[in-house]
Amino acid sequence: MHKGIAASPGIAIGIVHVLQDESMAVNMSLIDEDSVDQELERLEQSLQLSKKQLEELREKTAKESGEENARIFEAHLMILEDDMLLGEIKNKISSECFNAEYAVSQVVDVFIAMFREMEDDYLKERAADIKDIGTRIIKNLQGKPVDSLSDLVQEVIIVAKDLSPSDTAQMDRDKVKAFATDIGGKTSHTAIMARSLEIPAVLGLGDITIRAKKGDRVIVDGNKGVVYLNPDRETEERYTILMKEYAMYLQELKAVKELPPETRDGQRRVELAANIGTPKDCKGALENGAEGVGLFRTEFLYMDRTSLPSEEEQFQAYREAAEKMAPYPVIIRTLDIGGDKKLPALEMPDEMNPFLGWRAIRLCLDRTDIFKIQLRAILRASYFGKVRIMYPMISSVKEVRQANQILDSVKTELKEEGIPFDDQVEVGIMIEIPSAAVIADMLAKEVDFFSIGTNDLIQYSIAVDRMNERISHLYDPLHPAVLRLIKNVIDESHKAGIWTGVCGEMAGDEKAVPILLGLGLDEFSMSASSIPRVKKVIRSLSYKEAKEIAGQAMEMDDSESIIAMIQQRLSPN
Amino acid sequence: MHKGIAASPGIAIGIVHVLQDESMAVNMSLIDEDSVDQELERLEQSLQLSKKQLEELREKTAKESGEENARIFEAHLMILEDDMLLGEIKNKISSECFNAEYAVSQVVDVFIAMFREMEDDYLKERAADIKDIGTRIIKNLQGKPVDSLSDLVQEVIIVAKDLSPSDTAQMDRDKVKAFATDIGGKTSHTAIMARSLEIPAVLGLGDITIRAKKGDRVIVDGNKGVVYLNPDRETEERYTILMKEYAMYLQELKAVKELPPETRDGQRRVELAANIGTPKDCKGALENGAEGVGLFRTEFLYMDRTSLPSEEEQFQAYREAAEKMAPYPVIIRTLDIGGDKKLPALEMPDEMNPFLGWRAIRLCLDRTDIFKIQLRAILRASYFGKVRIMYPMISSVKEVRQANQILDSVKTELKEEGIPFDDQVEVGIMIEIPSAAVIADMLAKEVDFFSIGTNDLIQYSIAVDRMNERISHLYDPLHPAVLRLIKNVIDESHKAGIWTGVCGEMAGDEKAVPILLGLGLDEFSMSASSIPRVKKVIRSLSYKEAKEIAGQAMEMDDSESIIAMIQQRLSPN
Repeated sequence: MHKGIAASPGIAIGIVHVLQDESMAVNMSLIDEDSVDQELERLEQSLQLSKKQLEELREKTAKESGEENARIFEAHLMILEDDMLLGEIKNKISSECFNAEYAVSQVVDVFIAMFREMEDDYLKERAADIKDIGTRIIKNLQGKPVDSLSDLVQEVIIVAKDLSPSDTAQMDRDKVKAFATDIGGKTSHTAIMARSLEIPAVLGLGDITIRAKKGDRVIVDGNKGVVYLNPDRETEERYTILMKEYAMYLQELKAVKELPPETRDGQRRVELAANIGTPKDCKGALENGAEGVGLFRTEFLYMDRTSLPSEEEQFQAYREAAEKMAPYPVIIRTLDIGGDKKLPALEMPDEMNPFLGWRAIRLCLDRTDIFKIQLRAILRASYFGKVRIMYPMISSVKEVRQANQILDSVKTELKEEGIPFDDQVEVGIMIEIPSAAVIADMLAKEVDFFSIGTNDLIQYSIAVDRMNERISHLYDPLHPAVLRLIKNVIDESHKAGIWTGVCGEMAGDEKAVPILLGLGLDEFSMSASSIPRVKKVIRSLSYKEAKEIAGQAMEMDDSESIIAMIQQRLSPN
Repeated sequence: MHKGIAASPGIAIGIVHVLQDESMAVNMSLIDEDSVDQELERLEQSLQLSKKQLEELREKTAKESGEENARIFEAHLMILEDDMLLGEIKNKISSECFNAEYAVSQVVDVFIAMFREMEDDYLKERAADIKDIGTRIIKNLQGKPVDSLSDLVQEVIIVAKDLSPSDTAQMDRDKVKAFATDIGGKTSHTAIMARSLEIPAVLGLGDITIRAKKGDRVIVDGNKGVVYLNPDRETEERYTILMKEYAMYLQELKAVKELPPETRDGQRRVELAANIGTPKDCKGALENGAEGVGLFRTEFLYMDRTSLPSEEEQFQAYREAAEKMAPYPVIIRTLDIGGDKKLPALEMPDEMNPFLGWRAIRLCLDRTDIFKIQLRAILRASYFGKVRIMYPMISSVKEVRQANQILDSVKTELKEEGIPFDDQVEVGIMIEIPSAAVIADMLAKEVDFFSIGTNDLIQYSIAVDRMNERISHLYDPLHPAVLRLIKNVIDESHKAGIWTGVCGEMAGDEKAVPILLGLGLDEFSMSASSIPRVKKVIRSLSYKEAKEIAGQAMEMDDSESIIAMIQQRLSPN
């Protein structure tokens, strides 16, 4: 048995296919000065071919696994057109008379090293893309085929050091049963692709490429994160059963997609919504049965750029989401920047405790110029669907009133300009700061809805930064204080005749869902792929049972007992 | 009118005495190699004389204004014996043949620059001490008198760039009515000395030494932080009245020291206790009428050193405090290190959000070796007075149980070793994390008392780092959520038959005291000098009035209204 990282759920049993690491080792040779033009021409042809391949891959991927997964190839195409990269390569050929293959590998190596050293995790990961592109250009120069996973003749389980975006994109989905790789984590490209393609994957196994040989029998358990090489009969029999059970569970999940999000007895129906990062995510949300977007994070518009997005640019994005989701609602959260998310376009101070710092609504109330542009864009989009506005990081009544005052002034502006918008647009706030949860009754008078941001609410309530490994064990979604604060928010919202959702990870956590349901939560917003699982839990309980579970949980003084109780109630055998 | 920083309260009207900035400018001359020994001897004599002066100053200060204020001269004496500093000076004389004055000024300048560049605020401030010492050595070399404020012939108001520790220590207390300086803030040496000597002071005026001339008439208002140079008659008359009123207020404060801390109608008596940093602070606590120590910060034993303090060393310190305060109680808080306070002796990680990090009880439960030594020392001290133990940063029931389990094991050890201690020692926790305030009912079953650490409770509840200037305006002790959390803690403690104190700054805040009193708070612990003011507020109210104030405050949704209401009730005219 080999232990790795459970990166994509599911179980597969099959035959190993070892994917060789595509090293870029190429020979150096010096060309005649007379041949420089010829060599540059050879490079140009390889670049054109690479471009054509990537465009085809993008098309194919978009068609087969969605726009979001296809985006990686847009990044590759951009790299392929990068003036600095190409300039350097051409320079190596014309000034130093290197052969094209060697020029490419030299320059690409420098770029990879540069990106690997960057602090930003996102940019760090781009090193893999540059390597992928470099390999492609060189193979095209050598006239070798780039694709290696598109011509599989039998069903296999891929064992590799790592998988490149091109590998996963070209691979024949029907032949590949699972991945097992030496490197990579939960957020690596391979993990994301595996989950998106619904292929079981165990990553970060260290040396699986050395231990596994082509033709070996292998079990990949993406639920537990383990791999069995040449398993004994007993293990294989056990896994054959597990695999069938898991397949049945998936069937049930699929079946549940078309059914309403209500309790078994039909006594309580809730709204299951998706958290999205860009308008393109709406597709996945709808496919998974979301009846709305509970949290549209607008930061994507502001990140990775040196200028602020224009009103028009924002409007287009918000409108796209509103139209795609209509008639379902889209809750657009105003800019939640600061903390660990900094904006290159904005001078932001280094803070001793960024989580307790100048961020989100605090920043927007200080920088009303930025805030107003966003509110204008959101209001304009509200004409094209059912849009709701949500302010993050509210800690007091005063902040809500200030934000609403600015919203009113923007509405007046739009009216004067004759620009249409939904004047009845609902306005809500995130409840993610303990003080807001405690004064939910006061805040309920000022807004149309609450959405509890459990991730931050937990962090602040327990004073624990969950990214800090030394104390992350204290981060406890079922801490009795957290449950009480959530209950208070729900109760007070209902007293005031408004509704409450949760848009933190708790909404997609099967252990927490029965409690939230029993406490009377109205809306659960989560990553789209979690919706079927959560719906299944909701549909498995009567409302009375959920209320009993919630009631029992509220009496307990530690989360271990709560978890034990819920597990007992959900699967009593 | 000139606006500065209100560094020490009180009002004074008088004549300006400008204290010249003692610049260390000295002439450089080269000495003969033959004269080196003679010059070193001259330096030695000056050092001896400086040492003698400092020892006298220390004695005098200890006698006249307490051990705590005398400590600064111990620091000076240590600098005077610093091998590196002296070695460098002697080297400049023997190797480079500089005259002693120049050698001293050169080396001292380098040391000052070094300290000024340090990141630690405490070390930064040491630059002033080094300058002070350097000036003293040079003056003694030159045979000039060092003291300039000890021979004042009339009452004056000192105007200076800044005051050195020697200046303030030597000054004739009866002649100096106030300070006004160009530089310095609330925590500078001058501010601390002014408050300790009860001299009004306005600091950070920028250019007051340029604007004021010897003999000018001046008003220093240390309450508001303003200075009037050559005021008109109207202003002077107004201030003459204000000064009398303030003197009367001080009289009342003095009178109140001997009276019990109870409401006007005698219906409610509370405990007024002091927060202390070292056992030496007990004297000031008792002088100000403290009936106990509500918070003994034990960090002083761990800071500014490269090894951890031994059990014996800790025991001596805790015993000293217990004995000095007996029969009153001393609440010893276990190590609250981490966050912004790092230990040189302990490898502590750099954290992204130190306030939400590995600190206090979290660290102690991971490093039980350190924790056990401290608990042993505290238990041993409990035999010599009324000691109570308090755990900081508790967020859950589990943590209290873990800490108490360790305490029990230490008790067993001591019993087995035959070492006496108070087996009934009371154990309490700080309530400074929102989750703890919310589950006060559960925690009350585990401990003997609560002490609310309002500073942190406010920071976490509102998710605001009050040291962060961009958002410090959000730090709001009277935020309705904060008041509700405090009320909940007090109510639940009383239901469980235990008591609650406050050891944050709120306990010494005259605006907050009526509310805390009305909510039923049992103990108020604060800096010793605040006790008379707080007692006066408590004695001015009937218990019924306090309860009415608290009741009204709990109904309001913003702190501005609460403050207005309290001010109206406390001085209705």
